[in-house]
Amino acid sequence: MLAREKAIGLLDSGVGGLTLVKELNRLLPGENIVYFGDTARMPYGPRPPHEVRDFAVEIIEFLAATQDLKLFIVACNTATAVGLAHYQALFPFPILGVLEPGARAALKVSKSRRIGVIGTEGTIASKAYPQVLTALDPEVKVFDKACPLFVLLVENQLVDTPEADKVARSYLRPLQEQGIDTLILGCTHYPLMEHVLARVMGDQVALVNSATATALSARDILAQSDLLNPGQRGWQRFFVSGDPQNFAEIGSKLLGYPLRAYRVVF
Amino acid sequence: MLAREKAIGLLDSGVGGLTLVKELNRLLPGENIVYFGDTARMPYGPRPPHEVRDFAVEIIEFLAATQDLKLFIVACNTATAVGLAHYQALFPFPILGVLEPGARAALKVSKSRRIGVIGTEGTIASKAYPQVLTALDPEVKVFDKACPLFVLLVENQLVDTPEADKVARSYLRPLQEQGIDTLILGCTHYPLMEHVLARVMGDQVALVNSATATALSARDILAQSDLLNPGQRGWQRFFVSGDPQNFAEIGSKLLGYPLRAYRVVF
Repeated sequence: MLAREKAIGLLDSGVGGLTLVKELNRLLPGENIVYFGDTARMPYGPRPPHEVRDFAVEIIEFLAATQDLKLFIVACNTATAVGLAHYQALFPFPILGVLEPGARAALKVSKSRRIGVIGTEGTIASKAYPQVLTALDPEVKVFDKACPLFVLLVENQLVDTPEADKVARSYLRPLQEQGIDTLILGCTHYPLMEHVLARVMGDQVALVNSATATALSARDILAQSDLLNPGQRGWQRFFVSGDPQNFAEIGSKLLGYPLRAYRVVF
Repeated sequence: MLAREKAIGLLDSGVGGLTLVKELNRLLPGENIVYFGDTARMPYGPRPPHEVRDFAVEIIEFLAATQDLKLFIVACNTATAVGLAHYQALFPFPILGVLEPGARAALKVSKSRRIGVIGTEGTIASKAYPQVLTALDPEVKVFDKACPLFVLLVENQLVDTPEADKVARSYLRPLQEQGIDTLILGCTHYPLMEHVLARVMGDQVALVNSATATALSARDILAQSDLLNPGQRGWQRFFVSGDPQNFAEIGSKLLGYPLRAYRVVF
């Protein structure tokens, strides 16, 4: 098998990483993709870091054992924040996280250097975003806020409800008061409720998500090793740990084509 | 991806089909193999034919959706007996059963043309073996006997117990009394207790299993389409619907190397 025909593996706690699949579809349509949504153990945010790390390793092992991979993307901010270097040390293929690409994208956009970050409890507690942002630009002021309910709103298809609006206003008020001009959506689920966040934040604040930046990073890595798949349209395979129907329903809506998921239990 | 690098898919209700994997290892060591053992729904023997057919279709669909297949082998006599033509009509790749290769092998061996067949309730009730055998040789006399406990003895690692011996004697007595000279092991589990069956039947009766004959059929089909994989040693992937540890334990013992299985739930 030609190395370039191998797949890009992705993991997320649920459907959030599909926002990155959508960008991969746009930017790298020839790539074969295999995705694992750990919906039975979602949300990752409230879990201790070592547990999220173990879950991620288990999933990467499964995909490495049952598929041919050339690149892996930890399409989950929490799993990236608590263990990217750990995963990279364990597996032979390159592994990319979503955190640094998102941070770089935000620095490109922000004029005031006052940047907000929202994410899961785990991501925010790890302080990974402030660390990466200030390492890249010591002048930047970072204001972060955990938004634990957002993942649940997305996974349960409750984004377009008055409750979602109310929750969003309550979470985001402290960041508005800090006068940020850029808000990093530090969780791959959040782009799925971007319209709600935009409405709350208003048009003076740029919302930045890591999907485009991460897809571009993936393209760079593959191009450097001459591993880009020039095909017309790659295949996609979806595994979940929870209910495959629910995942397929949300996923089909998001990606714009029908998909089928299979349930794996560890 | 080169078509010859694609995998041979196999399904069985449990570990029985591994007897065929062992023959594939010997005769076609370069082939990539992906195996599904439906251990959560084992045994297939007592189930209504339409149910076994649906399970088999579900499994072939799963493997076709998540792997690259060039050939499929229904490595289960029950699933072959109740639906081979049905599966062949549904999927684009060639699908091979274990029944006809086993029947042909028996006809080559038998001198007296008195042939015994043992299998699950489902296989024996389908009358598939007598039909195939007499279609190939109208002179042959077929004596068949369902042996429902054998699959359970194998899957529960109870083959080398006095109970297994007693059960085997009781099942096989009527066949001995018919003076058969050849006994078809019409279930891929039975080679895993061949020593017990041989002890009971004595050395005047040839025991025939379909593993070698089916592996040779697979080789012919692949050779005809120029799809043989000339590699040194192919990879193997194992999925089960039940406990992956138990499967891996029996499977490692049988195949002679460690294996890891993953659990899929439909």
